[in-house]
Amino acid sequence: MFSSDILFFFLFTGKQAASSNFAAMHLLDGKKTAKAIQEELRERTQELIRNGKRAPHLAAILVGSDGASETYVGAKVKTCSDIGFESTLIRLPANTTQEELLTEIEQLNLHPSVDGILVQLPLPKQIHEEKVIEHIHPSKDVDGFHPVSIGNMVAGKPTFIPATPYGILLLLEHYKIETKGKHAVVIGRSHIVGTPMSILLSRKVYPGDCTVTLCHSATRNLKEICLQADIVIAALGRTEFVEADMIREGAVVIDVGITRIADPTKKTGFILKGDVHFDSVAPKCSYITPVPGGVGPMTIAALMKNTFNAYTERTK
Amino acid sequence: MFSSDILFFFLFTGKQAASSNFAAMHLLDGKKTAKAIQEELRERTQELIRNGKRAPHLAAILVGSDGASETYVGAKVKTCSDIGFESTLIRLPANTTQEELLTEIEQLNLHPSVDGILVQLPLPKQIHEEKVIEHIHPSKDVDGFHPVSIGNMVAGKPTFIPATPYGILLLLEHYKIETKGKHAVVIGRSHIVGTPMSILLSRKVYPGDCTVTLCHSATRNLKEICLQADIVIAALGRTEFVEADMIREGAVVIDVGITRIADPTKKTGFILKGDVHFDSVAPKCSYITPVPGGVGPMTIAALMKNTFNAYTERTK
Repeated sequence: MFSSDILFFFLFTGKQAASSNFAAMHLLDGKKTAKAIQEELRERTQELIRNGKRAPHLAAILVGSDGASETYVGAKVKTCSDIGFESTLIRLPANTTQEELLTEIEQLNLHPSVDGILVQLPLPKQIHEEKVIEHIHPSKDVDGFHPVSIGNMVAGKPTFIPATPYGILLLLEHYKIETKGKHAVVIGRSHIVGTPMSILLSRKVYPGDCTVTLCHSATRNLKEICLQADIVIAALGRTEFVEADMIREGAVVIDVGITRIADPTKKTGFILKGDVHFDSVAPKCSYITPVPGGVGPMTIAALMKNTFNAYTERTK
Repeated sequence: MFSSDILFFFLFTGKQAASSNFAAMHLLDGKKTAKAIQEELRERTQELIRNGKRAPHLAAILVGSDGASETYVGAKVKTCSDIGFESTLIRLPANTTQEELLTEIEQLNLHPSVDGILVQLPLPKQIHEEKVIEHIHPSKDVDGFHPVSIGNMVAGKPTFIPATPYGILLLLEHYKIETKGKHAVVIGRSHIVGTPMSILLSRKVYPGDCTVTLCHSATRNLKEICLQADIVIAALGRTEFVEADMIREGAVVIDVGITRIADPTKKTGFILKGDVHFDSVAPKCSYITPVPGGVGPMTIAALMKNTFNAYTERTK
């Protein structure tokens, strides 16, 4: 598997790395890993159906018609269909009231064959996101944003882990990256990526058991700290912020950033950039995620695993 | 205030510090700070009563008769009485079943004038601690151990913060210790101290906004990491583990450890030691907590603040 990753990197960057680094650098291919996870879920779902059981069922709610949200929800629904999960997409107008949305969620909470509920964020201004998230029953909280899910995660109890950090753990696991005793530096303290990532990597399980430093906008000597890292998780949302002089030889670099940059030469009208300056950083790394095709696809695979786990708990 | 702290340190260690360090070192006096917080709560409670309102009410449950647990619960009940809070101590025999304990909690959950419920840990083996903690209504969870409380803490929402980390925040605040952009190193990843402490110090509020490194048993270069710290929180539970060569000049050192060491020359039969080797570390610090009289008294003050806050929410 690694040899083709190296080839992919080779084609991807269009550059010839120095041979000493070349031997050590591997791409963490999120697209391929997500596909492998989803293929496994597809097989397990087929087996359920062969045994006369129903398929796992994800219900998604989209309020309004934001372009990026449409894309994300569309990808989730399509993945459900590829795997053989049942899915329901509920579209509500942009002027939906909070009360109306809570009523929809209440119905899904009570629905006996809905296993997971996700409300695509962001929501229109008249709706209080926290109220909505707290209204999802914790047993169906496949996005892992409910306080009960987060509290259980901190306590190390089995729970739904938010899709992005969970996807990163699955990627580290898939590539059998050693984590115990490593120094992980997480850049960015958002509630949905950086903070949970820092908590998860410090737990005494694999992947984890790292010494973790959580950095953010108030951090003073970021470069110095990053240079100590065996694993860097860049999740600050600033395009190509992490440069080669911040990374030590042999580090593992995970790029969570994904920003659309206008590019009229592309059919879509934009290209995607991460928080890491890939071309300069990659040759120093032992492993690195590309953008796109790294963390992005893994978040959907993680959501699908959460949905399958919710189903397993519900039907056992 | 500081001059008397210095004097106290002087008497406490019984040693003469070098005058250059002497000028910079201050004791973080938890006993005095807790007293000041409790005095403020006493005044606010008296005002409530003057206005014809009821006092805040803490209910504690003690299962069995473990010596240390008796001491801790006793100190909490006594502090309630000093402040003017109402308190109820429910004593259950060591052979209480989980079902019986849950029934007691249920009654306290429903009791209209009980504001806070605490179940003294550890519990006898036949009782599942997590089940018990999850049974306390989150609005009365003054120990801050319920998953909803922890989840809300991670999300930065108003909630009950576990008493020990909350007590440390109150101590930093009382002494106006600058924290923004400082590098805090937390040693120990327990669910009730180290992990929540690391989360709290990285939030974008005061006291907090620190770059935080969470270290533990798998950390490889602990000394090197500690030497980078502006603030060290020692919460690993190993007597006098942190020595002078791990601390840089001017650091703030918070000692959460408290271990009883047998000492037949003492009336109690033991002395208390922290996780920090106080005598050698103190002269290097700008601020340091003693053991006893540092973090210990602050945890009770924090519990009292949580109880007052629970009352305020319940009666508003």
